[in-house]
Amino acid sequence: MYNVKARAAFGATEPFQQTEITRRDLDEKDVLIEIKYAGICHSDIHTVRGEWGEVEYPLVPGHEIAGIVKETGTAVQKYQVGDRVGVGCMVGSCGHCEHCQDGEEQYCEGSNGPIDTYADVDQYGDYTQGGYSTHIVVSEDFVVRIPDTIPLEKAAPLLCAGITTYSPLNHWQAAGKNVAVVGLGGLGHMAVKIARAMGANVTVLSQTLSKKEDGLRFGATDYYATSDSETFKTLKNSFDLIINTVSAILDFDSYLSLLKLDGTMVNVGAPAEAAPVHIDSLISGRRSFAGSAIGSIKETQEMLDFCGKHNITPEIELISADKIDEAYERVLRSDVRYRFVIDTKTI
Amino acid sequence: MYNVKARAAFGATEPFQQTEITRRDLDEKDVLIEIKYAGICHSDIHTVRGEWGEVEYPLVPGHEIAGIVKETGTAVQKYQVGDRVGVGCMVGSCGHCEHCQDGEEQYCEGSNGPIDTYADVDQYGDYTQGGYSTHIVVSEDFVVRIPDTIPLEKAAPLLCAGITTYSPLNHWQAAGKNVAVVGLGGLGHMAVKIARAMGANVTVLSQTLSKKEDGLRFGATDYYATSDSETFKTLKNSFDLIINTVSAILDFDSYLSLLKLDGTMVNVGAPAEAAPVHIDSLISGRRSFAGSAIGSIKETQEMLDFCGKHNITPEIELISADKIDEAYERVLRSDVRYRFVIDTKTI
Repeated sequence: MYNVKARAAFGATEPFQQTEITRRDLDEKDVLIEIKYAGICHSDIHTVRGEWGEVEYPLVPGHEIAGIVKETGTAVQKYQVGDRVGVGCMVGSCGHCEHCQDGEEQYCEGSNGPIDTYADVDQYGDYTQGGYSTHIVVSEDFVVRIPDTIPLEKAAPLLCAGITTYSPLNHWQAAGKNVAVVGLGGLGHMAVKIARAMGANVTVLSQTLSKKEDGLRFGATDYYATSDSETFKTLKNSFDLIINTVSAILDFDSYLSLLKLDGTMVNVGAPAEAAPVHIDSLISGRRSFAGSAIGSIKETQEMLDFCGKHNITPEIELISADKIDEAYERVLRSDVRYRFVIDTKTI
Repeated sequence: MYNVKARAAFGATEPFQQTEITRRDLDEKDVLIEIKYAGICHSDIHTVRGEWGEVEYPLVPGHEIAGIVKETGTAVQKYQVGDRVGVGCMVGSCGHCEHCQDGEEQYCEGSNGPIDTYADVDQYGDYTQGGYSTHIVVSEDFVVRIPDTIPLEKAAPLLCAGITTYSPLNHWQAAGKNVAVVGLGGLGHMAVKIARAMGANVTVLSQTLSKKEDGLRFGATDYYATSDSETFKTLKNSFDLIINTVSAILDFDSYLSLLKLDGTMVNVGAPAEAAPVHIDSLISGRRSFAGSAIGSIKETQEMLDFCGKHNITPEIELISADKIDEAYERVLRSDVRYRFVIDTKTI
């Protein structure tokens, strides 16, 4: 076992504290990763605060992990000491179900589904602890390689914000289509960059025009304020695909009316409450209201290679570990451009 | 102008009465059809009772029309006197928009969308009156040919119940898939027969097992009661496609949980209220919640030819025009197996 430093929440409303946690000894397929950077995702906040169900404390969140391989198990084949690697939202799955066999382990139908990187129970019966830490032990099957062209601190957010937007853009074939991205936050700004690189024509739908200049710089052609009701008249029947990155109850019927015939609105964040949708909004244009969960390990590697090739990286604000609580408050106020990343030297 | 007999509603809650209405003189592309049979659709009831918005009275409903061509305009090319023909939910559209040009006129984006067969305003500024009548005048572009193998009285319900279920089964490619049909009424029983003929493996999800024998006879392999909560456990992750024919608010999350990865639930009826859907139900299996509106004229012809070839016809109860009010009450009580058809000789 390895004793490693971490920053943990000791309660739903308590500040983060420095602590020490243990990582398991290397199983034959495991790699020990020295974590260099860990992104802060809105999910971390929901989970830590118990908003997505009960959790155990102390809890170390973080599922946007970038680092260097330090040791490898005896049967590890893909990675060597010194490799630049990442870990995202999953660290395991049943391996046997139809979806695991098909390489879609994010939809694992094993009894517990995929094993989350933190706040879950792994195959050893241990409670998983995430990336706000100096080291982590993960099976090589859930580790991805970071291309040399992507700085490690900028790679971290790709492991959740990147793949969560890449996957639906890829699955619903954004290339050559009119794509709207709802919300220009951590996920939204990645969606804009990736969709543009895929060859889509991208429009941002944000509450106000305050980030318009950024959105256009990231690759959007158009930028509209959803607080302006004219927007919904102007853009009626305009989009083949809408990627909604906002985890809140919106006026979904209005957004659906922006879809062309056979268009799809894909949601990547899930509000706790039910979304009210008039079925007539779907019938009137044979439209679909859909959802997408992160992406597979194979697709995550594909996304990293795509970003490496197209020079796509997130906009980040690098912080020290002492600033996690402050960063959480700023995420909740949408005061982040566009992803906080913890420098783990300071953990 | 032609003075023709009809049965009309003179108010939202008043009984149907015999009356006379006028049909326009034939325009060069028009055909005069002697209506032989007219189906009763649930939409007729909603419309007559003002539940879908204000309407003008007297109102003659009916958009499942089967009859014989009696006269043709000077430029009519497709039909001759004596031809067996049908008219469905639309009698016109703008003809110019992208969807009309693509032969998807049911999604016409002209200022008024497609012209409904009744309770709409047509290109002449006239209020449209439907099929509970002895004759109707319609442009040949909105007339379809009924195959000789389909008796006219059985053809009538195909014009709405048939196409409304054929279209999504065709669009979402039911062939070879596991398809569930929710509700075994006028639309549901057609969905079962058509899906089976397309080569799908069909399961009926009905409130009770009271129509199980019928469902299996129509081509379903399995039949489950949705009033039994075990059903939702047994069938979790089972279907590629669910066709929902029930126009009411259901526990949509439970139905969505029955879809496999990448499955779609298509709704063909629209309750007035918003449907509550937890987005997590969509995200957890990359599922889609969709809608579909009737079908195009081209697809309606294709459906009729398909039904003719596969000997698919609805189960009907033929009634005289005096029984319309009683039939409406029975439709509202789901006491119909499976479609009322008016014999227009009695109008």
